[in-house]
Amino acid sequence: MPVFMDVHRNMRGISADDLKAAHQQDLALQDMEHVEFKHAWADPDSGMVFCLAEGPDADAVRRVHAMAGHPADDVYPVTLEV
Amino acid sequence: MPVFMDVHRNMRGISADDLKAAHQQDLALQDMEHVEFKHAWADPDSGMVFCLAEGPDADAVRRVHAMAGHPADDVYPVTLEV
Repeated sequence: MPVFMDVHRNMRGISADDLKAAHQQDLALQDMEHVEFKHAWADPDSGMVFCLAEGPDADAVRRVHAMAGHPADDVYPVTLEV
Repeated sequence: MPVFMDVHRNMRGISADDLKAAHQQDLALQDMEHVEFKHAWADPDSGMVFCLAEGPDADAVRRVHAMAGHPADDVYPVTLEV
């Protein structure tokens, strides 16, 4: 299954609870798009949030985040990793 | 140890071997800055590369990448993760 890193650029001030809640919303919706969110990292000062996910394609990842109420700014297919 | 996600924005066309070599260069230099690169993901089409690292501070992570010849465009302290 392809792997994606998506980026949210406007979550300045996000708290640990906010991130947990957002991630839970993704997990609750992901099955319908055959997506699996693996991990999320956030920098509350810059507002940058990075989410690692597996899914059939970038649009499926994008749709889950949009349905969950926190659309991604960019979704990158990371076809290489080490 | 603090965790960082750094971003390289200009690695369009990077190959699996390029990414592996770059990562090896980081691993060879990281000890002198007490940094540990954990994982790297790359999208050769957009040129975006994301590197996850632990280290004392963002500048230490930045210095290792610069010494290795592939400076990061941004280094974000990701203080929250799920």
